[in-house]
Amino acid sequence: MTSKQALPGRGSPGKGDKTRREILDVAADLASARGLEGLTIGDLADVLGMSKSGLFAHFRSKEALQLAVVDLARAEFERRVLPAGDGAPPGVGRLLAWLLAWADHIDRGRFRGGCFFAAASAEFDDRPGPVRDEIARLTRSWIDLLVREAEAARSQGQLRPRADPRQIVFEVHAFVQEANWAKQLLEDHQAFDRARRAIRSCLERQATARGRRHLSRKDA
Amino acid sequence: MTSKQALPGRGSPGKGDKTRREILDVAADLASARGLEGLTIGDLADVLGMSKSGLFAHFRSKEALQLAVVDLARAEFERRVLPAGDGAPPGVGRLLAWLLAWADHIDRGRFRGGCFFAAASAEFDDRPGPVRDEIARLTRSWIDLLVREAEAARSQGQLRPRADPRQIVFEVHAFVQEANWAKQLLEDHQAFDRARRAIRSCLERQATARGRRHLSRKDA
Repeated sequence: MTSKQALPGRGSPGKGDKTRREILDVAADLASARGLEGLTIGDLADVLGMSKSGLFAHFRSKEALQLAVVDLARAEFERRVLPAGDGAPPGVGRLLAWLLAWADHIDRGRFRGGCFFAAASAEFDDRPGPVRDEIARLTRSWIDLLVREAEAARSQGQLRPRADPRQIVFEVHAFVQEANWAKQLLEDHQAFDRARRAIRSCLERQATARGRRHLSRKDA
Repeated sequence: MTSKQALPGRGSPGKGDKTRREILDVAADLASARGLEGLTIGDLADVLGMSKSGLFAHFRSKEALQLAVVDLARAEFERRVLPAGDGAPPGVGRLLAWLLAWADHIDRGRFRGGCFFAAASAEFDDRPGPVRDEIARLTRSWIDLLVREAEAARSQGQLRPRADPRQIVFEVHAFVQEANWAKQLLEDHQAFDRARRAIRSCLERQATARGRRHLSRKDA
């Protein structure tokens, strides 16, 4: 228990922290393939060669374990996707940078099951409770972030005055999810390139001349 | 066993057939919410108030039950979506009619869990075997049907010569899947209207003047 509260030492996390992280890495990988509901403390203990009671010291319940895995996926997403926006100009440039980073994160990500949130959404959309709520909250906040950036782009004259930020985000978000689906189910290895092309065309089509200057090929 | 092979009487299916159909209706609804893997013969027997041995007479294994449910979903899809194309002009008109009928089928469908195939894909993409193969085969054949119609539309001069049928189908297919996801997880009741709008815009953008005559508003 102390390990969870202890601050990690400089450059070397405490042993307990490292174990928790290792457990979560394995749990996230298992969950991305078998589903979060298929993730039992017993199975996880088998895979890790740990005792169930050892695991229970970290996660008091299956739900706590599921929420910790969701939180790990959130942290990975934030670490691998959001910084792409920092180096990009605000508006359509940032939108494109985020979307391409998100596509790369899933396409080249380490989870066997592809996009963690897509798999978890399909699994939990009909299972009311804290896990579903957290997945919906995180997904909604990503969409809202994209919509706010599209709104900013429009007010800065980068998108056409009649452009509909929510419709644009619906479309570009769809392309990444479709690519994940097509790669996972149909083993379509061109799907992410199709998504990248579709995202860029959508933004270019809705952009003004000023906006298009921020969508240069250097990000491609 | 005979009931499965018996031809149904005129207007009144044999008792065995009716029971099998009723079982599958309940099974498909359960599976759309809990997942196909969550569909056990024991649980289904409980919900139906039947004995497990009674269910086993219809389905010899969980996998046989899962495949029968997939087949029911295929039949519903074929009955509710494909005929929309018969009344439409070949080419982009038929493409639009199929896509709008597909969106309606999911949006107004009777499965609690939304699109049966989307839920089943997310669940089975990492579970090799006959169920995954069948879901992938059916999904691929729907996409291929759409691509062939887009190719026909292009050769009939309804789509621009440089239009890419597979890219177009990737995009419009994505919109329907995104709407299903957004409705199921985020309870976004505008999502299917966004999808319909996006499908129509995509086809209009890629169509020639001749093609656009087949995309008139009467289908909207």
